[in-house]
Amino acid sequence: MLKSFINVDANSHFPIQNLPYGVFRKKGGKEEPSIGTAIGDFVLDLSVLDDAGLFDKTSVRGQKVFHQSTLNRFMELGKTAWKEVRAVIQELLRDDVPTLMDDADLRKRAFISQNQVDMLLPVGIGDYTDFYASKEHATNVGTMFRGKDNALMPNWTHLPVGYHGRASSVVVSGTDIRRPQGQIKPPGQEYPTFSPCRQLDFELEVGCFIGTGNRLGEPIPVGEAEEHIFGMVLVNDWSARDIQAWEYQPLGPFLAKNFATSISPWVVPLEALAPFRIPGPMQEPEPLPYLKTNKAGSFDIQLEVYLKGDDMESPQLITETNYRHLYWSMAQMVAHHSIGGCNLKPGDLLASGTISGPEKITRGSMLELAWRGAEPIKLSNGKERVWLEDGDELIMTGWCQGDGYRVGFGEVTGRVLPAVKLEGMQEVGILKS
Amino acid sequence: MLKSFINVDANSHFPIQNLPYGVFRKKGGKEEPSIGTAIGDFVLDLSVLDDAGLFDKTSVRGQKVFHQSTLNRFMELGKTAWKEVRAVIQELLRDDVPTLMDDADLRKRAFISQNQVDMLLPVGIGDYTDFYASKEHATNVGTMFRGKDNALMPNWTHLPVGYHGRASSVVVSGTDIRRPQGQIKPPGQEYPTFSPCRQLDFELEVGCFIGTGNRLGEPIPVGEAEEHIFGMVLVNDWSARDIQAWEYQPLGPFLAKNFATSISPWVVPLEALAPFRIPGPMQEPEPLPYLKTNKAGSFDIQLEVYLKGDDMESPQLITETNYRHLYWSMAQMVAHHSIGGCNLKPGDLLASGTISGPEKITRGSMLELAWRGAEPIKLSNGKERVWLEDGDELIMTGWCQGDGYRVGFGEVTGRVLPAVKLEGMQEVGILKS
Repeated sequence: MLKSFINVDANSHFPIQNLPYGVFRKKGGKEEPSIGTAIGDFVLDLSVLDDAGLFDKTSVRGQKVFHQSTLNRFMELGKTAWKEVRAVIQELLRDDVPTLMDDADLRKRAFISQNQVDMLLPVGIGDYTDFYASKEHATNVGTMFRGKDNALMPNWTHLPVGYHGRASSVVVSGTDIRRPQGQIKPPGQEYPTFSPCRQLDFELEVGCFIGTGNRLGEPIPVGEAEEHIFGMVLVNDWSARDIQAWEYQPLGPFLAKNFATSISPWVVPLEALAPFRIPGPMQEPEPLPYLKTNKAGSFDIQLEVYLKGDDMESPQLITETNYRHLYWSMAQMVAHHSIGGCNLKPGDLLASGTISGPEKITRGSMLELAWRGAEPIKLSNGKERVWLEDGDELIMTGWCQGDGYRVGFGEVTGRVLPAVKLEGMQEVGILKS
Repeated sequence: MLKSFINVDANSHFPIQNLPYGVFRKKGGKEEPSIGTAIGDFVLDLSVLDDAGLFDKTSVRGQKVFHQSTLNRFMELGKTAWKEVRAVIQELLRDDVPTLMDDADLRKRAFISQNQVDMLLPVGIGDYTDFYASKEHATNVGTMFRGKDNALMPNWTHLPVGYHGRASSVVVSGTDIRRPQGQIKPPGQEYPTFSPCRQLDFELEVGCFIGTGNRLGEPIPVGEAEEHIFGMVLVNDWSARDIQAWEYQPLGPFLAKNFATSISPWVVPLEALAPFRIPGPMQEPEPLPYLKTNKAGSFDIQLEVYLKGDDMESPQLITETNYRHLYWSMAQMVAHHSIGGCNLKPGDLLASGTISGPEKITRGSMLELAWRGAEPIKLSNGKERVWLEDGDELIMTGWCQGDGYRVGFGEVTGRVLPAVKLEGMQEVGILKS
């Protein structure tokens, strides 16, 4: 098995088989951010390797793509460059290659402990699209809102339903999340009320970043779609269910989603996920030709969600699920997104939508776990949760289990802060919650 | 009345009272784009004035904001800078101020005929949001799709309904529009068909560009909202009605809208529109406090749409309406957009949604004009139109009528090209249209 001279625990998410990309800055430092990869407990600064001439035989030579505050310039270079760079890094980290291992000075400059850096938003996100690709999630939500017989809309099995999200409010893991406020209309009330959200939720998702795009009017064929994908991250698409219920007809979710979306800081390359490729669920009815592919389009990624209330000693596991449950593949999402001519650009984020599986523990949102309030989640401290409360921290993690190693995504975390006090709203007695 | 030494026709959209901003490049030239204003039939190159030191007494001094390919850096500087720059330009163009008028060399370098330049997309658009702010439009569409009794959703009179659109496919006026294709489900068919769109439509809208934004979690109060708006443009939000009808539930329009959105190249400053400010329609029920303002929030902007088929000699007027019909104001849209904490950024585009008025000629989309096919539009060449056909050119224009002058938006135009031929789709007999 491929092994690094850097010591990597069997449970670490960052062995030599992974090598995700991220943007970091030394804590407290005033230096410019740069681009690194994660290996064990360290960040390997790729700008240092680049300065040392170690990428001179690849297409990134002289382009300074690692002396950047986002991955976009590297992403734009395309699949060949990604492959070349990954091969160089993997070679340099091997326990039988002396170049970096035996260069004490270079090692000192190139490795930084992960706890000495701040991870930044890795990508300049142009457009953010969110899909709805889990059949179990769509069925659960549909059952709660429209009843069992009309749970799944007739279009759902024919196309990956998606909508445009808000790119500006995508934040990196660790960013506190301010409880949103807005209009809600509690049952039985004739008029809406202005209130902090009372039904704050998370959504466990996985997203992919577009590396190379397409020109306006020129669709990406499904068979080529994965060539355009740079890598994947965990996504928490925070949701205000009460705001959503009142606002979403007929044009879809808006303020219910655009107050924040959190992503994990390390972008895992598609190449690192290749050994964990599996077929997705059987698709019946058969998709139209532009969505049809024989290649196994899913991945065996174990996913977990933990909740830690203010007064809890440790986080509690509330969801245990798998990426494999998704009905539509990333390749199908890319092909569908562009079939009408829409141009995807380097840095665009496409997220899967909430990932839920068939059993209760596999549900990827509070809405489903507590069945819209009917089945509260019991916490270890004796309390219950139906929705997220102020002070709650939400932690998502995910990894592929190899033989003796894990290719992981790290974590995406976020803590809920109370809603801001808005002058003038309380005075007129509008804040009723 | 304020008068320029540049001759400006009374019907010109670009008198000294307007002074919109745009990005241009000399035709055929290889020079970098720069930023200009329109005056009569000319573009005044602001980068030339800047190089001549004429903005040295304003906040843009030394910032090179006019040597750019987008307006974003100028927009970010905020309202004071916009006001100062506008005052300088207006002063320099007066017929009683010699600085520019009597400097033959500077004039030669600074003025270019509008027919000698290509206008480019004026702004780097981060996020694009589309609202649904015309009550007549929402009622018309609702009546057609859900019947008269359920035409307007219960939320409509309480909040400006909006959704996230696609920023990457916003294009400048004059860009040809490729007919999109995708899944449609004609009535009576059990399964969807892959087909070029058969119900291609336009939507007459007006959009505003955010100049200065807000921080995540910190809403913009409605009373301050206009301070964040840099200026306004005409918007044609091309729509594929058949794709929309099949895909839009439950998360809203996606491929039906993201193949293209056209905007006019000149951004008209809010200050130029000030003399045409009027109150919008009476709002009943009274909006919640965060949407309430006493300031007149609408503008008297006359709007027209022309259609020119391939075989028509000249464009034919099909819509004559006014911005004043919009129920929700731009200030209310900005306040609503940010109330949950969503951060707006310099360069974000917020569009009004289709603008329709009470009479038939005031309807701002083909869907409404031809009442979903029931009342075809009669053309001057004896033919009819229900939806847009290949080769059709759509021209939108708009202006405010002053006393002896017009503050105009110019035009937003686009011609429909046939759908691209996709290999493999025809072979399997999927293209049935």
